Amino acid sequence: MSEHLRPIEWIGDGIRIIDQTQLPGQLVSETLRTVDSLVDAIVRLAVRGAPALGAIGALGVALAMHEARREGWSPARLQVGIDRIRDARPTAVNLAWGVDLVRPLVDSGVDAVLTAGLEIVARDERVNHTLGRHGADWILARAGRSTVRVLTHCNTGFLAATAWGTALGVVRELHARNALEIVYVNETRPLLQGSRLTAWELAEDHIPHVVQVDGAAASTILRGLVDVAIIGADRIAANGDTANKIGSVGVALACAEAGIPFVVAAPESTVDVRTATGAEIELEMRDDAEVLTFAGILVAPATSRAYNPAFDVTPARLISAIVTEEGVLEASSGHVPGDRPAPVAR
Amino acid sequence: MSEHLRPIEWIGDGIRIIDQTQLPGQLVSETLRTVDSLVDAIVRLAVRGAPALGAIGALGVALAMHEARREGWSPARLQVGIDRIRDARPTAVNLAWGVDLVRPLVDSGVDAVLTAGLEIVARDERVNHTLGRHGADWILARAGRSTVRVLTHCNTGFLAATAWGTALGVVRELHARNALEIVYVNETRPLLQGSRLTAWELAEDHIPHVVQVDGAAASTILRGLVDVAIIGADRIAANGDTANKIGSVGVALACAEAGIPFVVAAPESTVDVRTATGAEIELEMRDDAEVLTFAGILVAPATSRAYNPAFDVTPARLISAIVTEEGVLEASSGHVPGDRPAPVAR
Repeated sequence: MSEHLRPIEWIGDGIRIIDQTQLPGQLVSETLRTVDSLVDAIVRLAVRGAPALGAIGALGVALAMHEARREGWSPARLQVGIDRIRDARPTAVNLAWGVDLVRPLVDSGVDAVLTAGLEIVARDERVNHTLGRHGADWILARAGRSTVRVLTHCNTGFLAATAWGTALGVVRELHARNALEIVYVNETRPLLQGSRLTAWELAEDHIPHVVQVDGAAASTILRGLVDVAIIGADRIAANGDTANKIGSVGVALACAEAGIPFVVAAPESTVDVRTATGAEIELEMRDDAEVLTFAGILVAPATSRAYNPAFDVTPARLISAIVTEEGVLEASSGHVPGDRPAPVAR
Repeated sequence: MSEHLRPIEWIGDGIRIIDQTQLPGQLVSETLRTVDSLVDAIVRLAVRGAPALGAIGALGVALAMHEARREGWSPARLQVGIDRIRDARPTAVNLAWGVDLVRPLVDSGVDAVLTAGLEIVARDERVNHTLGRHGADWILARAGRSTVRVLTHCNTGFLAATAWGTALGVVRELHARNALEIVYVNETRPLLQGSRLTAWELAEDHIPHVVQVDGAAASTILRGLVDVAIIGADRIAANGDTANKIGSVGVALACAEAGIPFVVAAPESTVDVRTATGAEIELEMRDDAEVLTFAGILVAPATSRAYNPAFDVTPARLISAIVTEEGVLEASSGHVPGDRPAPVAR
C-alpha cells in the first residue's frame, strides 16, 4: 500500500494530497491550487506530519508562483503568500525549513523551485528508509531479543512523511525483518492520529497492532508489555529537547521509570540549531472544539473551556536515542546529529 | 446543585439513579427494580464511581429481596442475584464491600438491609465532607500559598459518590474556602468521565476549570501550571498501592518528576486490607468498542483491535498522601489509614 499511495503529489500546477481528516472512513484526495486552500489544508490538518510539511512548504512555493502568474500578483504579494504558507503552523520546523530551502530560487523561476521541491520529496523517502534501518539496528541491539513489542504515539508513517515514515518507518523496518511482535498504538487525542491514521497504515500492511487510549500508555509500559517506545519529532532543539505531539513526554517519563528505551526518529531537517533548548520552542495552541466536541457532538458542558496545546517538549535527558538518517545519537551527550547548519539541497 | 440532586435514591422497592451515560447532554434519571437492570446499569456505567458502587451494592441487596418476594424466588436464587450484583465489576472494592456489609442482615428482613444501606448513603456524605476538609488542609499547608491550581482525572464528584465527592470533594472544599484558582480536568478517555461528568459538576457550581486531553496532563504538570494533582481510588491495597481509572499512574509520574504532590482521596472503605499490594488487584478489561468507536462512529480501521484496561495501579511510593475520613497518610510509611478490618455499620 505504502509503495503505491502518496500523501503528497505535484500535479502540474498544484498539489494533490490525501485528506487525512477523512481517514480511516474514506480514502479521498484533494487538489490544492491556491495559497488559501493550501494554508487551510495545513491548518485543519488535512495534510500534517513534520516531514510532509517540509515537502508541502517547498512545493507550496511553486504552487504560490503558479497562482501569482495566473492571478497577476506583484512580487511583494507573492512573498506575502509564501509567508502565509511558512507560518501556517508554528511548531514543526520542517514547514519553514521547506519554504526557506527553495525561496532563494524564486527569482530563477518556477521550474527551479519545483525541481528543488521534488528533490526534497525524493530525498525524504531515501532518508526515511535510511533512518528506519538505523533505528531498527539500534533497537534490536539494545533490546537483546529477536522480536520486540513497540509503543508509538501519533502518526509518523508515510502519511506524515512522503513515503515509508519516520518512527513508523522504523516499525516497518522491524516488521520487514520479522523482528516485530506487536505495536501498541496510542490513539492520540484530540484528533486521533493514532487510531485514525497509524492503525490504518498498520492495518493496510497487516502489521499486528492494538489501539489504546493515551492514558493507558504509562501502565502498558510499567507492566512490561512493551520493549521500546518510538516517536517522531516536530522540532529538535540543539540540546536534544524534542517537541512532539501532546502526550509524548508522558510516554518518555514512563519509559524512564520502566528502564526501557525512549527513541525519537526524525530526519535531520527536524533539528533546529537556532533553537538552543526546548524552552524556546513555540507550542501551537489549537481550538477548544477539538477537545470539547466529537463529530459535531458536544462532550462537555457548553460553558466549559479547553486547554489544548498541540505539542509538548520532552527533555533530552529522557530520550535514549535520537535516530536520523545520519545515525543514532545516544542520550544526553549534548550533541545531536544535526548540530551544525543543515546543508541545502544535497 | 449538588445539594439537591442525588445520583442514587431508594424509592420504595428499587433505586433511582441519574443515567450518567447521558450527561452532559441530558440530565435523566432511571428507575431500577430488577437485578438484571441494576447489573446492566453498573456494567454500562450508568451508575459508577467507587463510593457510589458501595451504596449501590448495599441498596442492591434490598432491591434483590424485593424482586425475590415479588417473583417468588428461592433463597438460593436470591443469593445468586446478590452475587451477580457483587461481581458486576471486579476492580472497585466498594461494590463487594457494600454487598457484604448488609448481606448478613438478609435473614433479618428487607427493612434491616435497607436501614443499613441507607446508613451507608448517609455516612458517605459525612465521610466525603470530612475527607474534603482533611485534604484541603493538607494541600494548603503543603502548597504554602493561599490559592492553588489543581489537576484531576476521571470523575470523583457527587456523581461518583452519593453527595459532595471524594477528590472532587476536596476541590469543592478548596473552592468553598476561596482557595481554588482553577481545575485542569483530564477528559479521561475512553468514556470521558472528566469532560462529561467532572466538567459538568464544576460548570453547575461555577467552579473555574478547563478540560484537557489526558495526554496533556504530563506537560501541564511539568510546565508548572498546577500545584497539586488529586484523584480518587477504586481500590487501595494494604501497602498503599492504588488502583484508579486508566491514566492515573501517568499523572503520578509527572507529579514526581515536577516535585508537586500527588494526592489520593477516598473513603476508608476503599482500602482493601486483604489485598497486600497492587500486583494482586484484578484490573477490569473492557470492550474494544469503547476505544474504537465514538457515538457509533468507527474511529479506527474495522480490522483493528483495542487494548482497553479500565484501571491502572499507582505504586505507593509515587503517592504523596492518601486522604480518608480518618485523616491523611503521607507517602510510603507502609501503613494506610484503613490498615485494619473495616468496622461494620458505624
